[in-house]
Amino acid sequence: MRIAVTGAGGFIGSALVRRLVEGPNPIDRDAPISRLDAVDLALPDFGDARVRPVIGALPDPSLETSLFAEPFDVFFHLAALPGGAVARDYEAGWRVNFEASRRILEGLARQNRPARLVFASSVGVFGVPLPAKVDDETLPLPTMSYGAQKLMVETLVNDFARRGLVDGRAPRLPGIVARPRVKGGHLSAYMSDIFHALSVGESFVCPVSAGARSWMMSRRRGVENLIHAARVPADAFGPQRAFTLPALRVAMNELVNALAARFGAELGARVRYEPDAALEAQFGAYPPLTTAMADRMGFQHDGDIGSLVARALNLEFVPGGAA
Amino acid sequence: MRIAVTGAGGFIGSALVRRLVEGPNPIDRDAPISRLDAVDLALPDFGDARVRPVIGALPDPSLETSLFAEPFDVFFHLAALPGGAVARDYEAGWRVNFEASRRILEGLARQNRPARLVFASSVGVFGVPLPAKVDDETLPLPTMSYGAQKLMVETLVNDFARRGLVDGRAPRLPGIVARPRVKGGHLSAYMSDIFHALSVGESFVCPVSAGARSWMMSRRRGVENLIHAARVPADAFGPQRAFTLPALRVAMNELVNALAARFGAELGARVRYEPDAALEAQFGAYPPLTTAMADRMGFQHDGDIGSLVARALNLEFVPGGAA
Repeated sequence: MRIAVTGAGGFIGSALVRRLVEGPNPIDRDAPISRLDAVDLALPDFGDARVRPVIGALPDPSLETSLFAEPFDVFFHLAALPGGAVARDYEAGWRVNFEASRRILEGLARQNRPARLVFASSVGVFGVPLPAKVDDETLPLPTMSYGAQKLMVETLVNDFARRGLVDGRAPRLPGIVARPRVKGGHLSAYMSDIFHALSVGESFVCPVSAGARSWMMSRRRGVENLIHAARVPADAFGPQRAFTLPALRVAMNELVNALAARFGAELGARVRYEPDAALEAQFGAYPPLTTAMADRMGFQHDGDIGSLVARALNLEFVPGGAA
Repeated sequence: MRIAVTGAGGFIGSALVRRLVEGPNPIDRDAPISRLDAVDLALPDFGDARVRPVIGALPDPSLETSLFAEPFDVFFHLAALPGGAVARDYEAGWRVNFEASRRILEGLARQNRPARLVFASSVGVFGVPLPAKVDDETLPLPTMSYGAQKLMVETLVNDFARRGLVDGRAPRLPGIVARPRVKGGHLSAYMSDIFHALSVGESFVCPVSAGARSWMMSRRRGVENLIHAARVPADAFGPQRAFTLPALRVAMNELVNALAARFGAELGARVRYEPDAALEAQFGAYPPLTTAMADRMGFQHDGDIGSLVARALNLEFVPGGAA
């Protein structure tokens, strides 16, 4: 099986590459991975001869010529500019989030046999304020350019699938935790920062209220869901290839309690809530979520907050780890 | 007021240009039209010195440079490759329906004061089979590339409006009748051909069943609705700038009866129904439609089938005509 992962140097992408090559091919045990093209501007050493580092970023005509010279079986497209960065540089966001995705669809469409494309979409396709509940019938009305770009690629994935050119599937990821503490352009960075701060005994100023609820998923669960997205048979889909993944709906004080259960009861006193109105509106008012389509296809959230915390703090991805 | 109309040589566009310049500016009586850029590959002579013919089609960098050299007040973007033509030539469809629209948004976004953009979207954003009813909450899932491209532009119009760059509005037009009998790439051409055939005493082989129901609007009503779209104040909109126009839901045998009432009862015998499964599925099974958002803003359908027939057969647009 020949695979590609874009954004392979990123938080989710690097864990996905490691998970793919750590043992038998988790997409299909009977189809060993012959080559995995890891695409990103910078890459770790994955220590596996089958992983071919492809340094660069799409759109880039010469990179595309070499990348699409031979057909892929499965293509994971994760590379994206996050919402905060897109808000600061719309043109860069358009190029990375939309145009690169379109070029990948065009590249894959030239194959004789349709590749399976897993496009990492986002719950950012839903704008704020969100309706009282979100399900598979909810009309996506993005209120960030990031979400608009993801939604447009979803429409394109559906159209290429309908035309029989690319067997695309576009799971919408919720907030993935716990991202490393870097200035990565993620407006929702606080959702991850709180894990790191409290687990090492620091105090934390939370920029949303104690009762602010968000949809969350650990990186490890996110990686398993992306792999599962490549496993779902094509005939499980109708005209809609985009679907929201199940996620835990977590209030910040519930998260603090779960962290306290693991790291000590005094930890609650180290959190001060100073809600920022914009962040609260954008990330702190997520309503109940039902995900019938994803549930039916076997996608899963982390189960409970304790498991979310355990998996999220496994900062280095541990194959077959305890959590 | 400075205006542009793309697709100005087309069936709807030419009627829109004539309506705009026939008397006091119907968008705003107190703001006379100083110049109207009529953009298309071929144009009639509109016989009005304010109408500047711009021969060409977007995307085209040199045309764009000259077009966007001075700011617009209102920009009607109607130019499009219809569904059948897009199905035959995807690349051309992408260029005309998506890329040209994006370039127009980018061009308008460079103005100091946001232009009002009326983008002619389409009920083609809804795929088939359609749900049991369609309203403003219905999830658009296009099943033609034409509809996918229109939907992606809607998303872009919403994003540019949210960013405060272009005051866009995207009314979704239903089947507009009666288009002239040409091979124009419209798969739904039969909806118009039946008007022409029966009104001149010909027989007609109808490619959908007698009970096939479609959403229809006369060109004259369509033009009035496009003009109204330029009149609606910006604060009437939330994050959704795209909305389905009210339309009459007409069964083919009802249409035949309405034509017979005008052109003679013997006319019913000249129609033979030979349903084509693909056309029936794509155009003949339109469910009841409610359009609360458009209704609230004052958009209207033709009222009844008799009025639809009368207006539709006014082949040359007659300003202030009887129907």
